[in-house]
Amino acid sequence: MKLILLSGGSGKRLWPLSNDARSKQFLRILDGPGGLKESMVERVWRQLGETGLQRSSYIAAGKAQEEMIRVHAGLSVPLIIEPERRDTFPAIALSAVYLYSVAGVSLDEVVTILPVDPYVEDAFFHKITELEQVIHDSGCDMALMGVKPTFPSEKYGYIVPETGEPKLIINAAGDVTEAEASDAETGDARSYQLVRRFTEKPREEAAAELMQRGALWNCGVFAFKLGYLINLLIEKRIPIQYDELVNQYSTLVKTSFDYEVVERAKQVAVLPFDGCWKDLGTWNTLTEEMGTAELGEHITTELATDTHVINELGIPITILGIKNAIIAASPDGILVSDKASSPRIKEVLKNRDKRPMYEERRWGYYIVLDYLKYPDGSEVMTKRVCLDKGKNFSYHYHNNRCEVWTILSGEGEMMLDDQLRTVKAGDIINIPLGSRHCLLARTPMEMIEVMRGTQLVEEESVRLEADWKDIMQYCMI
Amino acid sequence: MKLILLSGGSGKRLWPLSNDARSKQFLRILDGPGGLKESMVERVWRQLGETGLQRSSYIAAGKAQEEMIRVHAGLSVPLIIEPERRDTFPAIALSAVYLYSVAGVSLDEVVTILPVDPYVEDAFFHKITELEQVIHDSGCDMALMGVKPTFPSEKYGYIVPETGEPKLIINAAGDVTEAEASDAETGDARSYQLVRRFTEKPREEAAAELMQRGALWNCGVFAFKLGYLINLLIEKRIPIQYDELVNQYSTLVKTSFDYEVVERAKQVAVLPFDGCWKDLGTWNTLTEEMGTAELGEHITTELATDTHVINELGIPITILGIKNAIIAASPDGILVSDKASSPRIKEVLKNRDKRPMYEERRWGYYIVLDYLKYPDGSEVMTKRVCLDKGKNFSYHYHNNRCEVWTILSGEGEMMLDDQLRTVKAGDIINIPLGSRHCLLARTPMEMIEVMRGTQLVEEESVRLEADWKDIMQYCMI
Repeated sequence: MKLILLSGGSGKRLWPLSNDARSKQFLRILDGPGGLKESMVERVWRQLGETGLQRSSYIAAGKAQEEMIRVHAGLSVPLIIEPERRDTFPAIALSAVYLYSVAGVSLDEVVTILPVDPYVEDAFFHKITELEQVIHDSGCDMALMGVKPTFPSEKYGYIVPETGEPKLIINAAGDVTEAEASDAETGDARSYQLVRRFTEKPREEAAAELMQRGALWNCGVFAFKLGYLINLLIEKRIPIQYDELVNQYSTLVKTSFDYEVVERAKQVAVLPFDGCWKDLGTWNTLTEEMGTAELGEHITTELATDTHVINELGIPITILGIKNAIIAASPDGILVSDKASSPRIKEVLKNRDKRPMYEERRWGYYIVLDYLKYPDGSEVMTKRVCLDKGKNFSYHYHNNRCEVWTILSGEGEMMLDDQLRTVKAGDIINIPLGSRHCLLARTPMEMIEVMRGTQLVEEESVRLEADWKDIMQYCMI
Repeated sequence: MKLILLSGGSGKRLWPLSNDARSKQFLRILDGPGGLKESMVERVWRQLGETGLQRSSYIAAGKAQEEMIRVHAGLSVPLIIEPERRDTFPAIALSAVYLYSVAGVSLDEVVTILPVDPYVEDAFFHKITELEQVIHDSGCDMALMGVKPTFPSEKYGYIVPETGEPKLIINAAGDVTEAEASDAETGDARSYQLVRRFTEKPREEAAAELMQRGALWNCGVFAFKLGYLINLLIEKRIPIQYDELVNQYSTLVKTSFDYEVVERAKQVAVLPFDGCWKDLGTWNTLTEEMGTAELGEHITTELATDTHVINELGIPITILGIKNAIIAASPDGILVSDKASSPRIKEVLKNRDKRPMYEERRWGYYIVLDYLKYPDGSEVMTKRVCLDKGKNFSYHYHNNRCEVWTILSGEGEMMLDDQLRTVKAGDIINIPLGSRHCLLARTPMEMIEVMRGTQLVEEESVRLEADWKDIMQYCMI
């Protein structure tokens, strides 16, 4: 069986810690082994390792997340990069085509799709391995995992199984018996049910009724034979060769896999999971799984009951007598919310599109310290940039800005317009508009970068296709 | 009559907006005329102007506040500068000696002391002018203003008048009659009472009883004949020549004027004031007088009832469903407090001594954007510095740090080690350790300053005794 982990999300729901460059799955705020904090991606990738599934797993993600996923799941993580964000159906189609035409996976092999960030116990992943057998045993097009609800949530989709009539439980030999139906109720590992229908986000009373009828939460885990989806793509005249599909990716319909595939499948099985599963998608659910109420430095709390504080800023936060609240501060902003209201953050911020003020990158990270826009349209952005040892910026230049770097610590090699030089703490480097430059850190380096120009928020630098070794050789000549 | 306004305060109670360099009286958060925001100092100084008292007024303040007071009350405000902070008795003694030996004020003239920051209506200042007559009429050593309490506060000191026996009301001719006692009760402008005793911060029940007995709040307004205090200083062998007292200032006992003088005076009169008076010393009292619930940029509030937000940071604040709270953010820190708990801030922060991250100065202001301390003890501080048009830094050098300036906007003249040059937006200026330098802004200027060295937080620059004109002339030669 192959596993495809979908890494999505624009990150508004956990603002201001998440942003367009750092979705919630990359926040290091969960308690990991050895007292270290880990992100959702780190946690799931670790669990996949512990349950022996990591070597069969791929992560599908947008281009913008590539660097972050490598930081959190390792440089060698197998990635399927979506050319652009287009919802789950295109992402899963691309993944299937990749497995088929690039990785050479057999059409008979079962593929399981899951989100990259469920908060679950290891048993969840053991259960996932059973989906393969469910597909083979049931002869269904598709097998889903259904989480046994613990309360009548209005946030989730429900999978309604066939009930009120004899349960269609099929044993390994293919016999259908009523006797074995009781296995499903006693929680036998191989028990599954057929799906009657799906219900999206019901009101609380309806959800309570669904629970009584044995409905399960849809946790976004779908298994199918690779051949099933490839055939479906052929029917839809979607290319099944990877390069071709990448080229046509922008023409795929923006729709969910649930809607486009699952709900239209002839017969779907569901495997109930009766264990810990949480969607840590909002501050109130996430703080339940934070081991400590305070994360970050310079936090003083007094009479603050059940209040969680996360401080990623360098300045102190003092909390006096605030109950049941979440206070989160990052270079992107400050959130002060009572826990019950915190799910509204996405809606409140839906029209705000601000540049991320903090980004983790392949080479390290940067924080925006200050941003100014003058009446004449010229802009200034001041950043602190941290480059890890042995890492380098790409060779690039800017059409719209000049930069001044003051090196604070460390040393490295810099190339500026074909001139190689050593730079170290105390050096001031003036990079005029259009100058090609890059930097390799021999030791960890920090610098203050003052950018002056226009469109500092929107415009990308122009990357030159050359890697560090080429440049070094070029300069050595 | 002369007025001495005492400007005190270290500024912890309105943290993080107030700091050691910007006490609460300098926060521009009150609604002023013409829709502009004004500080407590600006408001009181304006009211003194409107009531005709400004030209008889002096402000006594510590050296650290000199620049700020000139920014808020005008460059020509008469100042009495305390060489160091030593409580109210030394400050008032210095002020009296200044009036006597420098300003040549007659020993028969009445001097009235008041805080620089009471939040009052103009009637308060009209009432103050009556203190002169009370001193003359009553023959008392001292006349105080007493505010009629509106609730049994535990925070204030109470002035308990003589009651339960015939009131000693003395008319202009010096006759004591019971008939005129009724004037005191009908609120006649010239009515005053004699003081029986003082009670500091009583418990609520005791305060309620004091109110019933006609006790008044001590609002820190004391009037006396200059000669009375000068004689007292002579008795205490305290110098009555200004220069001499300045030299011996550090030997004066650190004690309050209430304790050292008022409570030991033979006979004290009190003039009741039955009008609006507020001590805006804590967030919960101050927010009552803020016209708007939101001050600053980038604030989003939803379901936040009776919550006040002040944002001096460049990053957005979002508030969801927080009631009756004060949220204040500045480069010094972030406070999230329910209003009832907000007076505790001073106590909670009492051991925290952090460098102010924002300072208004004679020449403009600066904001600390970033501060780092490396394991080897070296430090980096990054500031944005704004210099007003026509203003200049003093000529100075640093023994412990070098600086890199990136000029962002404007232009000016700079002197660096006896070399004069013009600097403008885009210039990068490297100021090595020990280099003498100053800058004069021809237009408003902004720059990013990166300081590298040690003791960046504590150490002052070394100021050279030269003003800009001298330097220009020196360089022109």
